[in-house]
Amino acid sequence: MKTPLTLAISGAAGQISYSLLFRLASGELLGPDQPVRLNLLEVTPALPHLEGVVMELQDCAYPLLDRVMLTDDAKSAFRDADYVFLVGAKPRGPGMERRDLLTANAEIFKHQGQVLGECGNPNVKVLVTGNPANTNAMIALRNAPGLTEQNFSAMSMLDHNRAVGMLAKKCGVPAFDIKNVIVWGNHSAGQYPDLHHARVRGQSALSVVDWDWFTNDFIGHVQNRGAEVIQARGRSSAASAANAALKLMQTWIAGTPDDDWISMAVASDGSYGISKGLMFSFPVQIRQGRYEIVQGLSISDFSRQHLQRSERELQEEYQAVKHLLS
Amino acid sequence: MKTPLTLAISGAAGQISYSLLFRLASGELLGPDQPVRLNLLEVTPALPHLEGVVMELQDCAYPLLDRVMLTDDAKSAFRDADYVFLVGAKPRGPGMERRDLLTANAEIFKHQGQVLGECGNPNVKVLVTGNPANTNAMIALRNAPGLTEQNFSAMSMLDHNRAVGMLAKKCGVPAFDIKNVIVWGNHSAGQYPDLHHARVRGQSALSVVDWDWFTNDFIGHVQNRGAEVIQARGRSSAASAANAALKLMQTWIAGTPDDDWISMAVASDGSYGISKGLMFSFPVQIRQGRYEIVQGLSISDFSRQHLQRSERELQEEYQAVKHLLS
Repeated sequence: MKTPLTLAISGAAGQISYSLLFRLASGELLGPDQPVRLNLLEVTPALPHLEGVVMELQDCAYPLLDRVMLTDDAKSAFRDADYVFLVGAKPRGPGMERRDLLTANAEIFKHQGQVLGECGNPNVKVLVTGNPANTNAMIALRNAPGLTEQNFSAMSMLDHNRAVGMLAKKCGVPAFDIKNVIVWGNHSAGQYPDLHHARVRGQSALSVVDWDWFTNDFIGHVQNRGAEVIQARGRSSAASAANAALKLMQTWIAGTPDDDWISMAVASDGSYGISKGLMFSFPVQIRQGRYEIVQGLSISDFSRQHLQRSERELQEEYQAVKHLLS
Repeated sequence: MKTPLTLAISGAAGQISYSLLFRLASGELLGPDQPVRLNLLEVTPALPHLEGVVMELQDCAYPLLDRVMLTDDAKSAFRDADYVFLVGAKPRGPGMERRDLLTANAEIFKHQGQVLGECGNPNVKVLVTGNPANTNAMIALRNAPGLTEQNFSAMSMLDHNRAVGMLAKKCGVPAFDIKNVIVWGNHSAGQYPDLHHARVRGQSALSVVDWDWFTNDFIGHVQNRGAEVIQARGRSSAASAANAALKLMQTWIAGTPDDDWISMAVASDGSYGISKGLMFSFPVQIRQGRYEIVQGLSISDFSRQHLQRSERELQEEYQAVKHLLS
């Protein structure tokens, strides 16, 4: 039997984690012969509820689940962690301005970044799901001495999958027939789901669907999908968000297929004119656990405007929290 | 690519299904090269909520998910189904007596049994999770012309896994070191989790833990685990119930390992003196999709009393619904 690997999850008592933990423990992330340890992090008041979740994990008698630990201390949770899912974030409270929310979360992620840096695992993979995910991830990265931009990502996989699912439905094909969709920018309604390079069974997507549908239906639909799910379910996306986190981490470990890429928010290196350092969703390819931003894609004027709009949004977020960057 | 197989799930908008559907769609049940279709059944008022769940399934862009259909008509849901998860059941309403609850559910499961019989798939596997699961499964089986006791099971896998998890924790070993636990009887607090034949790393469990712990702690703890989880989580077990349903169906398809069995509620053939026809949880072994009740186990006087108590409980349930049996 292999040595166990350790997965740390923050916000472990929340709804997304409830959809994530049982899939992680079953071996879906690391395969059927890899034992795992779960380090579950929560704020102190949520620990009793989290104990109920731990009971249920025990009640699954998972053959691969070597140990579950719950804690309200980030250092205990992240020590020895190989893969970290930062799911927890402060939600917007009544009367809270957007700027207050950004700052409150930035302080949490500053601390978590510092702790991750101190833990000193140079190969740790940290995926930020808690919103505002991109800026939270930037804060964590910039406060984690010894770690690099290769250690951090913010999730745009949910947006990517939403775009793939919607295009597949429109074209009446299964999702695996869709390739090279891109979601650019921020994980917010300011994101830009782009079909210029997408293919449907090998054909250019924009020769299969018409421009009107792309610009007047698809883009807004993907951008506002979260609100649509809330309206139907009465609750925000949890299972699909957890699925995206699992798939992103899986792909980060196993790599992208040769004929496709994924959308992943990573620290900009200036590619496509995006300000260096912003966590921005790009098309990336992954080999041996390292991502590379796909280079050389043509960007139409239409796309350029959308990229810049999302960049401006992230710059505004940056202004609100830059006092917390080291 | 293989021909898709069809999974039907009732109570599809509920919490257990929310933990189950995304694992079924990911390929956990039937493997990474088997496309699946999901037929989702709900009562009419829950269909709008279920549409939100369907959106989230689409938002996962599952490569193996060939089609999702939602309906309030059992015939549409069960037609062509290869595997059926009967998760939905009427919950106890205010002022409702236990007998009323039994009858209300019996009517639902009578109808579903009839429809399954009419669908005419002689290889369909139907797992009843909705409570009172054993009696509901008996009603469905007895109203399904053309189907046999090999087509129906009620879930005691959750109880089995709870027993395994609890013994593993007590002994400080991983769950895969525990074999041959049995949960006998009803999926209720009247069940009997039995360690007489269980082994911990090959040793007899009752030589590893003491009799007092077994009789005064373990049994009651497993029997009342559901209530304990509700108290901690504020909600009933969902993810662990979904996991048990998935594992049971997986084992029903793939078979039990040579050195172990599972607990599965099936129609009694009189084994161990249990009245024929009652759906009673026995230790079973499964080969090529067919279960057999493990024969010849010694039953102590202590165990005999517990088996008979659970049998009496099921007989009482039978009395309440027998007018609905054909």
